[in-house]
Amino acid sequence: MTEQDHKPLRLAIAGLGTVGVGVLKILQKNGELIAARTGRAVEVTAVSARSRDKDRGVDLSAVAWEDDPVALAARDDVDVVLELIGGSDGAAKSLVEQALNNKKHVVTANKALIAHHGAGLADIAVAKGVALNFEAAVAGGIPIVKALKESLQANDYGRVYGILNGTCNYILTEMEETGRDFADVLKDAQALGYAEADPSFDVGGIDAAHKLAILAGLAFGYDIDFDAVQVDGVEQITANDINLSKSLGYRIKLIGSTSLIDGALAQEVGPMLVPHGTPISDVSGVFNAVAVEGDFINQCFFEGPGAGEGPTASAVMGDVIDIARGLVTPPLGLVGGGRGPAKVADKDAHIGAFYVHLMLRDEPGGMAAVTNIFSDHDISIASMLQSERAEIAGDPVPVVLITHETTAARLNVAISAISGLKANAALPRVLPIATFGE
Amino acid sequence: MTEQDHKPLRLAIAGLGTVGVGVLKILQKNGELIAARTGRAVEVTAVSARSRDKDRGVDLSAVAWEDDPVALAARDDVDVVLELIGGSDGAAKSLVEQALNNKKHVVTANKALIAHHGAGLADIAVAKGVALNFEAAVAGGIPIVKALKESLQANDYGRVYGILNGTCNYILTEMEETGRDFADVLKDAQALGYAEADPSFDVGGIDAAHKLAILAGLAFGYDIDFDAVQVDGVEQITANDINLSKSLGYRIKLIGSTSLIDGALAQEVGPMLVPHGTPISDVSGVFNAVAVEGDFINQCFFEGPGAGEGPTASAVMGDVIDIARGLVTPPLGLVGGGRGPAKVADKDAHIGAFYVHLMLRDEPGGMAAVTNIFSDHDISIASMLQSERAEIAGDPVPVVLITHETTAARLNVAISAISGLKANAALPRVLPIATFGE
Repeated sequence: MTEQDHKPLRLAIAGLGTVGVGVLKILQKNGELIAARTGRAVEVTAVSARSRDKDRGVDLSAVAWEDDPVALAARDDVDVVLELIGGSDGAAKSLVEQALNNKKHVVTANKALIAHHGAGLADIAVAKGVALNFEAAVAGGIPIVKALKESLQANDYGRVYGILNGTCNYILTEMEETGRDFADVLKDAQALGYAEADPSFDVGGIDAAHKLAILAGLAFGYDIDFDAVQVDGVEQITANDINLSKSLGYRIKLIGSTSLIDGALAQEVGPMLVPHGTPISDVSGVFNAVAVEGDFINQCFFEGPGAGEGPTASAVMGDVIDIARGLVTPPLGLVGGGRGPAKVADKDAHIGAFYVHLMLRDEPGGMAAVTNIFSDHDISIASMLQSERAEIAGDPVPVVLITHETTAARLNVAISAISGLKANAALPRVLPIATFGE
Repeated sequence: MTEQDHKPLRLAIAGLGTVGVGVLKILQKNGELIAARTGRAVEVTAVSARSRDKDRGVDLSAVAWEDDPVALAARDDVDVVLELIGGSDGAAKSLVEQALNNKKHVVTANKALIAHHGAGLADIAVAKGVALNFEAAVAGGIPIVKALKESLQANDYGRVYGILNGTCNYILTEMEETGRDFADVLKDAQALGYAEADPSFDVGGIDAAHKLAILAGLAFGYDIDFDAVQVDGVEQITANDINLSKSLGYRIKLIGSTSLIDGALAQEVGPMLVPHGTPISDVSGVFNAVAVEGDFINQCFFEGPGAGEGPTASAVMGDVIDIARGLVTPPLGLVGGGRGPAKVADKDAHIGAFYVHLMLRDEPGGMAAVTNIFSDHDISIASMLQSERAEIAGDPVPVVLITHETTAARLNVAISAISGLKANAALPRVLPIATFGE
């Protein structure tokens, strides 16, 4: 270590919400431990937040205050800027850009910022020789960013997938355990603070898609490309879907999954069926989990708290500790910044089994017409469930089919043929079945 | 990066068994990818192994050969020595010591070496300013060493525990699934290559204890102290124990667990009951898993392959990649080497619930005498199972009790009183119940 490395590491914190206050609490409680581990003190020299006077339960009297968070990037008494404001643009982006350009290390928990602007920001960080660390942006406390860009880098990655949104996982878990419907459980989740007043960001899959785009960038080295993620939310999942899946041996989870298909980048977020007895199917409540497939590791699985003051602040401070030790890895794990834009995999390239939920009028020939269409399109049926007969002949009844492996392209053609059948009484609903490892 | 950092990183490999050959295969398949990720080539310049002529399926014609592995430590054309020989002493230890003293980085997969001599070797590495990396020594491909000494270092660690031996976990899983006895399943495991011809190292808990001692060193910073680990193996576990536990809502796992109890280091390896529905209870077959508790992260859980050519070599090469990037962390995560020797927690300090298996003669007053003893020692009983009556009155029948939380000290006194009862027909068997997180 050089003389420089023993000087205190000076942090500026922009944003004193849950995560920012969590960071201050870690420094208060574990500051000495962290100094013993890194060989230097870590101290906060400046902060910026919306309200100066709010009581946050931590003493900030010795810390400089900036009304404008972007001003933190210009301070001489700051080595590392912690961007904990949030939002993909505005002050967060200006602050990070200016801090990197001023050769200050940056640590951020901002998934939207990295998902939208990660490629460009990583280029600046590499050019300036500073860190741009964002462990807290993906799966909260789970150290998956560092696992992908450091520990597991001997591998050519296969599929990376996981449960990336605790709100959705809580809602789906509750729906399964109580048999209640989506809207009902969502209300409870809001009352418990597990879902926002406007829940669309979470239940619509956007939050998970931000994290998935970042994981894809880390795993495959192409520019992070949020706009290419195929996103579906959990709003349409019914208690009935969950029950039917269960009787067929599956649980419904909001899964984010990315892989290369013939060199093209596939990124999907949406409700999928996962087989009972797999680690991912057993992740319940607000937890997050990520599985990494690699050519030598086979599969490694990480589970932990995906949000919350302590876990998120733990991830932020893990990034700070790396910087305190002089450990700087290129933001996306590739020297030079990355491989440029990816070729995007065709939406219909998805290969796998599918869950198909139909409403068919209970009349002679209805099922035969459906099975003939599958057969005509070379799709074989693995199992089928018709749980009830109509009380009045000719009324629609739910029919659920699980297909064997096929392509989304082929399935879509079959589904539109089924939609045109006289016996078909509602828009067919299709969910992919996650075929990854046991 | 300096000019130096762009030069190829030159490896010497000592030992060309499963792991050594795995490393060569990774370099063959992913060498270019690794160069793109680190910004420099990684190449093998010298090797040493038992037999020079053995066909290992990899081309070594351009690589220097040393008959004496220790000679690798002195070569000028080597930056990093990979110690893949094994054994806690002998050539492995000499090689690592001399390599560190010659200011060469060392990467090892040798859990016995680190468990026995980790503290001293870490001191040399810190003094010489080089890396001593041993990710592969604990839980194979799971990146738990780096998680503990880097990612999660903002936390004051609580309990660290896990399933650290794939052989035992395979045997226990098979026993549960098939109802067969230990000896029978062990034979199969040997035939499948999951257990060694001499299985005592695995089934006796020694291998898990090596790994646990290393985890304890990383989590708490005291000198690694293998001799202080309390070790019990799985040889005494019967199909009956597994069945009885199952009906009480538990699965039996070989668990390694370490924590600080009032500042004293507790390290235990042995069969324990874990509640159904916890992540650790669902780890089946040859997999390994580690859970880390910390004051801010709460709990983080890692699962993956604990052994095998690919996963172990992936961990070794992850360590090499860190060195290629110039990322060097003190071996035990504390600057200066560590906190010195730990105060060792008293064996009887263990607090928790227990599974107690008795053979009681089926006669009036037998059960009453047992429950009175527990009551006299302030131990309350959570549940009890007496599954059968004796065919001949007075013959012994199995009785299983689950206690509420108590101390090992108190329980031991009660158990010796029970042993002296006239109704008691065999040595009582006691297993701790893992009380850690859901």
